[in-house]
Amino acid sequence: MHKIFRLIHQDNSSSARMGKLITPHGEITTPIFLPVATQATVKTLSNQDLFACRIEMLLANAYHLYLRPGGEIIKKAGGLHKFMSWPKPILTDSGGFQVLSLSDLRKIDDAGVEFQSHIDGTRYFFTPEEIIHFQKDVLGSDIMMVLDECVEFPCEKDRARLAMERTVNWALRSKKNFCAERLTVSPQLLFGIVQGSTYLDLRKECVERLLEIGFDGYAVGGVSVGEPQDLIYEVSSQVAKLLPKDKPRYLMGVGHPEDMLEAISCGYDIFDCVVPTRNGRNGCAFTYQGKILLRNAQYKDDFSPLDENCPCYACENYSRAYIRHLLNAEEILGLRLVSLHNIYFYNELMQKVKEAIQNNSFLNFKKDFLANYLKA
Amino acid sequence: MHKIFRLIHQDNSSSARMGKLITPHGEITTPIFLPVATQATVKTLSNQDLFACRIEMLLANAYHLYLRPGGEIIKKAGGLHKFMSWPKPILTDSGGFQVLSLSDLRKIDDAGVEFQSHIDGTRYFFTPEEIIHFQKDVLGSDIMMVLDECVEFPCEKDRARLAMERTVNWALRSKKNFCAERLTVSPQLLFGIVQGSTYLDLRKECVERLLEIGFDGYAVGGVSVGEPQDLIYEVSSQVAKLLPKDKPRYLMGVGHPEDMLEAISCGYDIFDCVVPTRNGRNGCAFTYQGKILLRNAQYKDDFSPLDENCPCYACENYSRAYIRHLLNAEEILGLRLVSLHNIYFYNELMQKVKEAIQNNSFLNFKKDFLANYLKA
Repeated sequence: MHKIFRLIHQDNSSSARMGKLITPHGEITTPIFLPVATQATVKTLSNQDLFACRIEMLLANAYHLYLRPGGEIIKKAGGLHKFMSWPKPILTDSGGFQVLSLSDLRKIDDAGVEFQSHIDGTRYFFTPEEIIHFQKDVLGSDIMMVLDECVEFPCEKDRARLAMERTVNWALRSKKNFCAERLTVSPQLLFGIVQGSTYLDLRKECVERLLEIGFDGYAVGGVSVGEPQDLIYEVSSQVAKLLPKDKPRYLMGVGHPEDMLEAISCGYDIFDCVVPTRNGRNGCAFTYQGKILLRNAQYKDDFSPLDENCPCYACENYSRAYIRHLLNAEEILGLRLVSLHNIYFYNELMQKVKEAIQNNSFLNFKKDFLANYLKA
Repeated sequence: MHKIFRLIHQDNSSSARMGKLITPHGEITTPIFLPVATQATVKTLSNQDLFACRIEMLLANAYHLYLRPGGEIIKKAGGLHKFMSWPKPILTDSGGFQVLSLSDLRKIDDAGVEFQSHIDGTRYFFTPEEIIHFQKDVLGSDIMMVLDECVEFPCEKDRARLAMERTVNWALRSKKNFCAERLTVSPQLLFGIVQGSTYLDLRKECVERLLEIGFDGYAVGGVSVGEPQDLIYEVSSQVAKLLPKDKPRYLMGVGHPEDMLEAISCGYDIFDCVVPTRNGRNGCAFTYQGKILLRNAQYKDDFSPLDENCPCYACENYSRAYIRHLLNAEEILGLRLVSLHNIYFYNELMQKVKEAIQNNSFLNFKKDFLANYLKA
């Protein structure tokens, strides 16, 4: 059978690697950053904008789409790709993290999760099986995630063990429901999620039990949930060593450029984060010389672009002073231009990362990038 | 001297006419609708979006731009066109209407207007001369408007006369300050504004006195300020008859498609209105079959575009159901897609108007349009 994931190049200077992943809506090259389209749209951006940023894959959220617009409408549309007119791959998160962070009155037991919608208070009960059905048959996701139990930081070890064991149990049920008959060369993919909080023995046990079940890729969840940076780095680097080399590795919800580069040096392949769009809407632009807070008075008559060397639409056409004016005047175009630039920046950074890996110079690239990016 | 405005065609079936107007940033063909870029941006849209809608001219607002970002920044940018990266003509309103509608504690006397900023309460004093200087030398407007005193509806006749006389007096001072040495073939243009509320004798006197001063074009202000539709039609049609045929005529703040077509049949050439963008942000899409309120439940699984025959980006790529979802989920892309479609619709309507005038069939076109548009 055709391999779904294959490594193209392994960097000499680190564990960074470059790979190809085949999905029903096309092949992607890793490392890759996925812009977050929680509610079937990357906030403020059109598909045209995303194409202009050369985005190859998005992340959407099963929890949000289940609640609104709901499965009936997306099914009728012919799936999520048709509903949102996005022809390229989509990875969908199961909603484990959202149930944790957004919903009221949640009650988790081995059967599944009971919770009230954060939108209108309606009561729902999610099972691991239903979430797979929703992602696979209703949304038509290219890559779907198992339902997991994500715990906050800090978390008592007993509580973390319980959540990890439930996550493994749910992963097994998800895999069974997924019904992995691989009749085509580009089937939908199912990823397992490693939990275990900051306890490395729990993480190790989780990895081993997930490997026994077997998934198309492995995600590391429950990181960047409030713990300090060194603990994020420690847990993610240790877990990476336990994951099989021949499967894609997804570090969920990370992050900032410096965090992604660190994780790439440990061998992670896939990332998603709301930071480029959320910070964008707050007037924070990412550049190779560091972050720019556009509301600062120093930019009021700065007629240079957000980033001198950036060829994105915002930088080719508008100045910092103009975008600052838009933000101050609460004009939507301001939110959009900074979001667009940030998504372009994140994607371009990943292109540079891939070049560096191919040249066996990832560590040098990382060092040079950080020297400029963090100097401000 | 080269004529700034010339009539290309006079419709046989009505007073509708087609003309060419030369401005420093290019020639435009009338009738024309100007999208409103109050704060140096058409709300939610980029210049790329406006180019895609084939927009030839925008309206911006001197009052708003004077307060934020202020003249110093725009001057430093090299004028409004450079500040907002808009290479085509811009008409700027003086702010008479905004002083009426937005500012607190305004005090109008013959010298000018004293008011407090609606943004931060700062006290300002505007004179007619300063407003001309700001539009001409700071913004670099292609077409600028005199400062006028716009009264609400209904308005006592004595009050309306006072405002009209002040408007004429200010118009004279504006013209003197404008310093009309016409050294180039495409100079900046100054338009006078006819006031007089709903009193036709006051309107007539105002026109006569403005004609004595002499302007590049004549605007009719103080309409669509709360009066019923038949009174808008009555006043605007009567005033149109008094205006010289060889100058462009601008009906300020009008409006809805049916109102613009009525005014075009009376011989008006230029329009501006916030309706396509404001209604767009409220989920109201304009189509040749009437207005669509996208929040209505009937559109929740309607996978057709906003308008079947529209080639705009929103209609070519997205469905009513998807846009409705975006609006319900408070996603900015929803506001943008409907605004974009509406601006495209308004501009395309004006293209069809021009074709109809050239074919001497404007009244038939208007009748057919209204039969479809108003039937819903």
